[in-house]
Amino acid sequence: MASPPSTDGYSFGPFELNLDKAIELIRRSSAGRIGLQVPEGLKRAAPSIAQLIIEKTGSEVVISGDPCYGACDIDMALCQETDLMLHLGHAELRDGPDNVIFLEARMTTDLEEAAQNALPHLRSKKVGIAATVQHIHKLDQALEILKDHGIEGLVGPAGGRIKYPGQVLGCCYSTAKALEVDEFLFIGTGQFHPLGIALATGKRVVAADPISADVSEIDPQPMLRRRFGAISRAMDARRFAVLVSKKLGQRRMKLAKRMKALGEAKGKEMFLVYLDNIEPDRLLNLGVEAAVSTACPRIALDDAAKYRIPMLTPPEFEVLMAEREWEEYRFDEIYE
Amino acid sequence: MASPPSTDGYSFGPFELNLDKAIELIRRSSAGRIGLQVPEGLKRAAPSIAQLIIEKTGSEVVISGDPCYGACDIDMALCQETDLMLHLGHAELRDGPDNVIFLEARMTTDLEEAAQNALPHLRSKKVGIAATVQHIHKLDQALEILKDHGIEGLVGPAGGRIKYPGQVLGCCYSTAKALEVDEFLFIGTGQFHPLGIALATGKRVVAADPISADVSEIDPQPMLRRRFGAISRAMDARRFAVLVSKKLGQRRMKLAKRMKALGEAKGKEMFLVYLDNIEPDRLLNLGVEAAVSTACPRIALDDAAKYRIPMLTPPEFEVLMAEREWEEYRFDEIYE
Repeated sequence: MASPPSTDGYSFGPFELNLDKAIELIRRSSAGRIGLQVPEGLKRAAPSIAQLIIEKTGSEVVISGDPCYGACDIDMALCQETDLMLHLGHAELRDGPDNVIFLEARMTTDLEEAAQNALPHLRSKKVGIAATVQHIHKLDQALEILKDHGIEGLVGPAGGRIKYPGQVLGCCYSTAKALEVDEFLFIGTGQFHPLGIALATGKRVVAADPISADVSEIDPQPMLRRRFGAISRAMDARRFAVLVSKKLGQRRMKLAKRMKALGEAKGKEMFLVYLDNIEPDRLLNLGVEAAVSTACPRIALDDAAKYRIPMLTPPEFEVLMAEREWEEYRFDEIYE
Repeated sequence: MASPPSTDGYSFGPFELNLDKAIELIRRSSAGRIGLQVPEGLKRAAPSIAQLIIEKTGSEVVISGDPCYGACDIDMALCQETDLMLHLGHAELRDGPDNVIFLEARMTTDLEEAAQNALPHLRSKKVGIAATVQHIHKLDQALEILKDHGIEGLVGPAGGRIKYPGQVLGCCYSTAKALEVDEFLFIGTGQFHPLGIALATGKRVVAADPISADVSEIDPQPMLRRRFGAISRAMDARRFAVLVSKKLGQRRMKLAKRMKALGEAKGKEMFLVYLDNIEPDRLLNLGVEAAVSTACPRIALDDAAKYRIPMLTPPEFEVLMAEREWEEYRFDEIYE
């Protein structure tokens, strides 16, 4: 089982990157052409990082200019164009290409204040702990703080597309689902991941943000109402696009074909649409009345307001087609 | 030399497509999985065309959901995912993948009125004629009308990435440059192609729009002033992105490396950036002060206003680096 690497390295805003390790690996590989892919939050640092690699290794560097949403989103064209690719900010998924070095970013902000603020919100003596990869190195500190207050912290196992114990991805909550606890403490920023834990496990989730030290209890009901609304709005749609992502870690063609067959069996017109970045104008022009997205679940769940037509996840489409009860609503996860 | 196919077929707005031919070719190939790629102007028709192919051939169809800007922009991921791809709307470039059928769209609007309107604007007795592929089947009619009025029409040869005599692409004006004439009659819509002819040949261009029947004489001076302005604005930039397109027919890595070396020799920081669709937000995040685009020339020349930083074509960057005189300004063309 992998243990989180140490964070001695270079700082970029709140992120720390162990670039010395990357430079060492590049030197050892004697690759002449290096690809550099970074998420949007690190994009401004890309030219400086490229410059550092050029100076320290003598290699040529080509920067990926397309947006990057995760380790699911490897720039395959750049992989083909270069000898070795350095993918920054995300933990490796399994089944990626061979010539990619993943170098995770660590957020250096201290957990102490956020964890202390979380304590009064916890109700159980046994709490599941989960974090996104940028904060995964803080799990031990969180366990200590809980222990000091008589609470047992539990961390679920890595496996599949999850590299570290306790890590969650927007599309995968297996570490949380593996635990038998009544509540979770999530360490990280944003509402999407803790909402995912709440919906995937059906349990109470307290989210502690190490940046702001804010703590909140997650209420999945508003999102569930919105999703029920989206399903209701799709009720009269006759023509559906089934979206399939070109991104290596989001490509679920088999699932898409199953959704297509399901819709057709119920008399709907279903079209398979293959695309890279899913954006509103892509769908406007296609003239469909609703869409089922088999790509990253955030597209339907987090970005719904950007789209003029209802966009459903596969389990939501099953609800619409009366193949699944609303009471069995399932958060869309990717295990492949 | 190819001659334009006849246009008996299916109509989609002002476009006609010989879908029977495509269906025949698909049947003959016995391909089970068909990719369908269409330009934005035909996107709304994509589901209906997909349905027709499914009904007539029994094949499975996957629609390309990404934008499509030309035959330079083959959806390679979809090519890999399917047995045969149908690419609509554009004439084939050379050196494309093997499993693509190109089916051009023809605009069915009559040329008569536009050509008659153009006659009083022509000054010579020998006029070069050029058109975009949607109107290429009207060249004979144009030649007839000119002949009836004592004007000899000349049509330049196909070759390279140009499929038909007299055809121009946004990135290639070889059919016009091959002619020794003092003026050109352009048949088509929009200002970009006739501007390209004017800048690539240095000759007078009269543009006749078959849709509106409007005729205008092209004045390249406003565009040249804007380009001079862009070069001037880039004068103080220290850090440049050299953009390289991932699109098969726009990928000019060698040229990009030459631009990078040229800038570095003059003390600039130059970064190679590899990307698919070039859009403003892609560059905002990179933190560069100017860009050189080796992709489709329209990105720098036609879309400049969309970008906050100056975006130059390679010949313009040569002017900036004092490797080319402004008097030798050259329209950026792609011959590869």
